[in-house]
Amino acid sequence: MAIVLGPNQYGKAETHLVRIVRDSPRHEITDLNVSSALRGDWSAAHLEGDQSAILPTDTQKNTAYVWAKTHPVDPIEDYGLSLAHHFVDDVEPVVGARIEIERFGWIRATVDGSEHDHTFVRTGPEIRTAAITVGPDGEHVIQGMKDFVILKSTESAFKDFLVDEYTTLAPTEDRVMATSLVAKWRISGDSLSEGGIDWNAMYEGVKAVMVAQFATLHSLALQQTLWNMGRAALEAYPEIAELKLSAPNKHHFVVDFSRFGVENQNEVFHADDRPYGLIQADVVRDDAPPAGDAWRSYSGLV
Amino acid sequence: MAIVLGPNQYGKAETHLVRIVRDSPRHEITDLNVSSALRGDWSAAHLEGDQSAILPTDTQKNTAYVWAKTHPVDPIEDYGLSLAHHFVDDVEPVVGARIEIERFGWIRATVDGSEHDHTFVRTGPEIRTAAITVGPDGEHVIQGMKDFVILKSTESAFKDFLVDEYTTLAPTEDRVMATSLVAKWRISGDSLSEGGIDWNAMYEGVKAVMVAQFATLHSLALQQTLWNMGRAALEAYPEIAELKLSAPNKHHFVVDFSRFGVENQNEVFHADDRPYGLIQADVVRDDAPPAGDAWRSYSGLV
Amino acid sequence: MAIVLGPNQYGKAETHLVRIVRDSPRHEITDLNVSSALRGDWSAAHLEGDQSAILPTDTQKNTAYVWAKTHPVDPIEDYGLSLAHHFVDDVEPVVGARIEIERFGWIRATVDGSEHDHTFVRTGPEIRTAAITVGPDGEHVIQGMKDFVILKSTESAFKDFLVDEYTTLAPTEDRVMATSLVAKWRISGDSLSEGGIDWNAMYEGVKAVMVAQFATLHSLALQQTLWNMGRAALEAYPEIAELKLSAPNKHHFVVDFSRFGVENQNEVFHADDRPYGLIQADVVRDDAPPAGDAWRSYSGLV
Amino acid sequence: MAIVLGPNQYGKAETHLVRIVRDSPRHEITDLNVSSALRGDWSAAHLEGDQSAILPTDTQKNTAYVWAKTHPVDPIEDYGLSLAHHFVDDVEPVVGARIEIERFGWIRATVDGSEHDHTFVRTGPEIRTAAITVGPDGEHVIQGMKDFVILKSTESAFKDFLVDEYTTLAPTEDRVMATSLVAKWRISGDSLSEGGIDWNAMYEGVKAVMVAQFATLHSLALQQTLWNMGRAALEAYPEIAELKLSAPNKHHFVVDFSRFGVENQNEVFHADDRPYGLIQADVVRDDAPPAGDAWRSYSGLV
Repeated sequence: MAIVLGPNQYGKAETHLVRIVRDSPRHEITDLNVSSALRGDWSAAHLEGDQSAILPTDTQKNTAYVWAKTHPVDPIEDYGLSLAHHFVDDVEPVVGARIEIERFGWIRATVDGSEHDHTFVRTGPEIRTAAITVGPDGEHVIQGMKDFVILKSTESAFKDFLVDEYTTLAPTEDRVMATSLVAKWRISGDSLSEGGIDWNAMYEGVKAVMVAQFATLHSLALQQTLWNMGRAALEAYPEIAELKLSAPNKHHFVVDFSRFGVENQNEVFHADDRPYGLIQADVVRDDAPPAGDAWRSYSGLV
Repeated sequence: MAIVLGPNQYGKAETHLVRIVRDSPRHEITDLNVSSALRGDWSAAHLEGDQSAILPTDTQKNTAYVWAKTHPVDPIEDYGLSLAHHFVDDVEPVVGARIEIERFGWIRATVDGSEHDHTFVRTGPEIRTAAITVGPDGEHVIQGMKDFVILKSTESAFKDFLVDEYTTLAPTEDRVMATSLVAKWRISGDSLSEGGIDWNAMYEGVKAVMVAQFATLHSLALQQTLWNMGRAALEAYPEIAELKLSAPNKHHFVVDFSRFGVENQNEVFHADDRPYGLIQADVVRDDAPPAGDAWRSYSGLV
Repeated sequence: MAIVLGPNQYGKAETHLVRIVRDSPRHEITDLNVSSALRGDWSAAHLEGDQSAILPTDTQKNTAYVWAKTHPVDPIEDYGLSLAHHFVDDVEPVVGARIEIERFGWIRATVDGSEHDHTFVRTGPEIRTAAITVGPDGEHVIQGMKDFVILKSTESAFKDFLVDEYTTLAPTEDRVMATSLVAKWRISGDSLSEGGIDWNAMYEGVKAVMVAQFATLHSLALQQTLWNMGRAALEAYPEIAELKLSAPNKHHFVVDFSRFGVENQNEVFHADDRPYGLIQADVVRDDAPPAGDAWRSYSGLV
Repeated sequence: MAIVLGPNQYGKAETHLVRIVRDSPRHEITDLNVSSALRGDWSAAHLEGDQSAILPTDTQKNTAYVWAKTHPVDPIEDYGLSLAHHFVDDVEPVVGARIEIERFGWIRATVDGSEHDHTFVRTGPEIRTAAITVGPDGEHVIQGMKDFVILKSTESAFKDFLVDEYTTLAPTEDRVMATSLVAKWRISGDSLSEGGIDWNAMYEGVKAVMVAQFATLHSLALQQTLWNMGRAALEAYPEIAELKLSAPNKHHFVVDFSRFGVENQNEVFHADDRPYGLIQADVVRDDAPPAGDAWRSYSGLV
């Protein structure tokens, strides 16, 4: 029996990088939180403190900045692929690179009814995400979103559920259903190889498809809604091999007015913080190629 | 010499209340964080533990919920005034009431190009705020905003400043200027008495005026920008007696590329979290009536 | 009628500064979040964008760092006074300075039963605070604490309160009482002038006195507990002119087990996040000198 | 080709549960954040909205509360195992259960030099964690910690690293090394089967071993420190099959005083928030049994 070094990686997390394109008076802004991790044989660093194969995390940060000048940052997937390839292709000991990106939303400010050339207002809470891996098993791209808060005020039920001795919940035909969605979809290797994906259009398209399902399905359960959101996205985008959803059920409790002589027919709710239901589901193609390192994550990027 | 009880207040903070209006298939949503504080002679509670004059904070919460059914919650200023008057007028020992409200933004989800009737998506980070006081010196309303993040990518300078032995900052003719604005504007008592204020229009109007100033003024300092934002708001809205601004200078540092043989002409920035400059200024009418208790706050509502 | 500039200030907020004293192998650590604001006639900066009287916030940051080398940072009150005096005394246009400090706790790591010389572990959530003002009305020091979370599991009641038509709360003889205390105490000007205050001893002493009251008073209300905490602190420390308390009532609800055939006699609680009661009280000496600018705050330092 | 449901789970996240043991005047407190997820064939719920096999998340919350009364909550590992077994053994469709727990620290308040019987003060930021899985491949327990912030002010170097064209970092013989440690260690199945593990002693023991390594190793790299922390823990505790570490390198930058005529020999630091280095390493026994579902996580529990 021996104690050995297992899987490991290191890098620079949460480099907050803003890129302004100012080639014309109408500027463009891209606002990113970039994390990079390098994979390879780092055993000498761990076992002996030998740094000779270690590219400092500070260098990774510098590189992320330079790449934002020398390569397009929009779409973020192309930026991430380029940066990952640089680490793997140009830095000798690096065998694999993981780039995780959050993109924060901005819109142009409106002045006198027109979009302003160089003034922007932050939007949110929705954050677009990307996770790019380049390594021994090739390229992987996972596109996604987080903190996308969506609510429907009717056409959601929860009833006929399993009851045991600790069940006190009353079934309901009509409730508020709300979530702060995390969704991540993996692009198939074939589609990546073919190239030509319009990443920004895909992001908006997947979001639109999922929103439509959330809105129009008369929901019997959050599980059912999630499944249909994922299924519809895969039907619309053959490039997507699988899609993962993690959805807190943000509870909106009807406040009990019975003692006040006032009716409350799903009109006034207490929105509770904790605890929350949490539903997680994957929707996959049954012929999806293996995920390899695609889902091996790095930063917790909260 | 004696030790005595000074100013005090108590209440329920951060009741997260969601109101759905469902009188037609096209629902409306109002999402509020409501805090209420009561003022009066609470010395028996403090000195002797005698609760006979204390309306429980739990009751204040219940009342906020009921009021959201029996009174319009939109605009929030009218809801707050009505709730504050209830406490002062209907609960014997209460002499003054403070209602502080945060309103979170939602827009209708778009499905097949149309706004959906009962599905909504959260917007932000901008939060609309209101602080209502009803007390011995009458009514006060402070309308406001927080977490309004705005950035301009050019037409902002900072130069010709005071230099001492600890100054290392280089002057600049062109920098990114960004802030996460907190603004609060107090309505004059006369305007409140006259009534008829369109609170939602005023909120959008003040925001538009301030955004226009931020965007179009070629700024020599954040102070100058703030002053002009406030001045323009007061000029546009005679109902406003004074306006307070608190603006972090969210630093965007040009990343030094000199060692990499790459130019960086205000294109790639490091957006730093801390520390930040923080500029605070009040813009007032020289004949503004006294503020009385208008600015005596309650919850830190983070 | 004219629109004019009202009160204003500017500075650098949240400079996170760590000072290591390493004059001997047994190092000392002081971990601070420092904010500084300057007050004076900054009207030219606001009205005309003229920066000639403006010492950059970057310079204020540099100065805070240098002062941490050239002056003791422990106790933080002396550091803050020294830094504030520098701005007022040495920088021509500055009329007043406000220094706000948060001090984070660290203890020595224990290795083989002994305190280690240069390894430390963070403690908390308690944060010690200080707010120092130097200006036209002299010096002010406010010592304080925040995020001090304390709970008693019995000997707290809440009953015989005012009941109205919206009251549903049941009275209780025995509940959990918990808070996350913010307390701030102002030192009298006379005590400051005399000098010789042992700030660290005062901080620990005030905390001990308040904890003892919280623990030993059989509480009839959080108000009563707060009053007695403040009263006891003022009795113990004649240097304190007044003490302000802001205490969220962190609700611990007894979970209803009645439907499960299990008893729950104040044994299992749901600790709720929001809403919370929020009680605020000042305890003052009736001959306290005027507070002047002592309570005029700057950074929200969350 | 078909679109199918992949791995999925659902449950109640972040039930904040406080247990007071009050069998004697000397009360005990256990403060937990509990999440539970159920695994099984939930395809009907997803594909058809059929809830007949779904035990509501509300019921899971109720059960967590009841279990905190009918079973010991301390140590949390035993509580989690018992709760997980209940779901798997007693609820028909449940095939696997995952329980994730955060335990917040409290110490007794000191009054007049003695520990108080029923008053407690929160400690932190360190949080103890546990992740329990009961499923088709048996029982798994992962003990751990998060938010454990530790710093050494000397005896840490970083030099002789790989240099490329984007490297600007200067090597150093002496720097501050600080991290906010996440560590998780998996107990071997054999040790679990044997029973008799003193969980609280193991937690304190592993922490002590890791702290000793952090403090006493003259570090050449954070990687080397992490490896030795993990190795020492596995050597001390044969029950541990593997240990995972995720360690942000919380940068403390020496502030440049060269322009001020003041020396700064590792005495004054700027503690930066973002970006941070992030080092992750696993330390494992080469004969460790397969992990099975042990690391299949649920809640992000932030």
